[in-house]
Amino acid sequence: MNVGSKCRTCREPAIIDLPRHNANFCAEHFLELCRRQVVKAIEKYHLLEADDKILVAVSGGKDSLAVWDLLLELGYRADGLYVGLGIGDYSDVSGQYAKRFAEERGLPLITIDLRGEYGYDIPTAARATRRVPCSACGLSKRHLFDKAALDGGYTALVTGHNLDDEAAVLLGNTMRWEVDYLARQLPKLEARNGFPKKVKPLVRLTERETAAWCVVRGIDYLVDECPMAVGNKHLEYKGTLNAMEAASPGSKAAFYLNFLERMAPLLAGHRADDQHTLRTCDSCGAPSSGEVCAFCRLVDTASAHERVPVELLTRGKR
Amino acid sequence: MNVGSKCRTCREPAIIDLPRHNANFCAEHFLELCRRQVVKAIEKYHLLEADDKILVAVSGGKDSLAVWDLLLELGYRADGLYVGLGIGDYSDVSGQYAKRFAEERGLPLITIDLRGEYGYDIPTAARATRRVPCSACGLSKRHLFDKAALDGGYTALVTGHNLDDEAAVLLGNTMRWEVDYLARQLPKLEARNGFPKKVKPLVRLTERETAAWCVVRGIDYLVDECPMAVGNKHLEYKGTLNAMEAASPGSKAAFYLNFLERMAPLLAGHRADDQHTLRTCDSCGAPSSGEVCAFCRLVDTASAHERVPVELLTRGKR
Repeated sequence: MNVGSKCRTCREPAIIDLPRHNANFCAEHFLELCRRQVVKAIEKYHLLEADDKILVAVSGGKDSLAVWDLLLELGYRADGLYVGLGIGDYSDVSGQYAKRFAEERGLPLITIDLRGEYGYDIPTAARATRRVPCSACGLSKRHLFDKAALDGGYTALVTGHNLDDEAAVLLGNTMRWEVDYLARQLPKLEARNGFPKKVKPLVRLTERETAAWCVVRGIDYLVDECPMAVGNKHLEYKGTLNAMEAASPGSKAAFYLNFLERMAPLLAGHRADDQHTLRTCDSCGAPSSGEVCAFCRLVDTASAHERVPVELLTRGKR
Repeated sequence: MNVGSKCRTCREPAIIDLPRHNANFCAEHFLELCRRQVVKAIEKYHLLEADDKILVAVSGGKDSLAVWDLLLELGYRADGLYVGLGIGDYSDVSGQYAKRFAEERGLPLITIDLRGEYGYDIPTAARATRRVPCSACGLSKRHLFDKAALDGGYTALVTGHNLDDEAAVLLGNTMRWEVDYLARQLPKLEARNGFPKKVKPLVRLTERETAAWCVVRGIDYLVDECPMAVGNKHLEYKGTLNAMEAASPGSKAAFYLNFLERMAPLLAGHRADDQHTLRTCDSCGAPSSGEVCAFCRLVDTASAHERVPVELLTRGKR
């Protein structure tokens, strides 16, 4: 940003430049822009109703704390959910940020500890299943988020996925033309088959913008990336999109938002999970395609394995 | 390639490594692989019939000379078409390569000179229309290729577009989700509405492979990129895909070929040109959406403009 840049709205000194909007903003009008983008996402994609009882999945990072903060500011009722994944110091610290945010504001925060309640952690699950850690982590979180939302009587599960996240997942699915995944890549998945409604109100904000939201609002968050995610494809796709965005500001948002506008409607009806009905897991009762759901199978395998410290999986990766 | 690498097929010393095939090849078996990929494209996408009378659009570069050579080798009847675009030395030299290839083999080569026959060249057209050169060039070539094919009674117009070209165009159209362009991005467009059948037999070969084909076969070709294309989006998308390919060999081919397999069928019926019928141009009789076709309008504008040397448009671009 150039020294002396002025806010597009009020001409006071700017604190942030947003090349894709071709404008600079002061703190007040930057927050306003963020609120407006979240409201626009909620309205355009029919994400939330005024009387929704919301559960926000909170990691302690910028996105999940920003979305919780934003929804409360916009007048929604929203509680938090934190899942302790057992990824060494990273998880310990992330939990502290999540809990401090909730405590300082007197907000309810449901906490689940994978090791304490299910007898495993993500590093151990990754080793036990011989799959990439992000796979075991995603499976665990999806199951526990869904279960917590349904058990608590929540009508909407909110996650902090931002524009960069969604664009990177979209690029990955597009590079392989995974049509059934593309068909599901929407900012809202309706409640169905025993799953809660799931929504992503931050899809019109970049991760730079959610970080700036937290800074301006005085929200402390864990800056580090998960140590197990280093070098994964998702971060590689983010890097590719960032390079394209630098060459053509606005291209990242156009990629994701035009997908929602132009392509997603053509893919309705191609969702794999629309094409077969689910039964319920014999063990936990969750929706499942087989007799025992993938989560219960993961718990069985991972909890029987000796504990694997995260350092064993990340050493030499950085 | 490692010193001492051996051909996958015969174990003789290799001359080229192909990471996406995870293999190395000697000259003979590399040529065989190229032929096989072209035959596979022709058969899989029903590109050509044995009795097609083929016109190959030849630029003097590696791809168009390689496809002409390959089709003749595979037993097809194929004449050449060269359009002199008037892009300074670049066009002069490219024409020499095209003519030499044809002369040495006693092949018919139709030649059209934009300046001599239509009173303009591409640099002048770009300046006169104030559009990017590649736009005026593409419009001119499409019209003249179609016209030459129809006038000469050819049943198939062949271009040398390779996997890198098609993947880069696909990435550009995907980044903006241009659904009507995506729906048209096929290795074959059937003859229709006064257009000839157009096919791209090299879509399963990369540009590195077509270059190697020419080297091994002793075909001299113009190595330089067009000086007016420097810095365009197409080359930027190629660079993006090459970086992704380096990180994950095979990803470029998967991107394009999976598109044809999985997505293109879902887009049938979304082609813009299927959705309205064309009339014929009052001036030249070609298919047109308006009274006068875009090519005739370009000729009018560009031929009335004073001649613009290519150096005026490319200076300082490199």
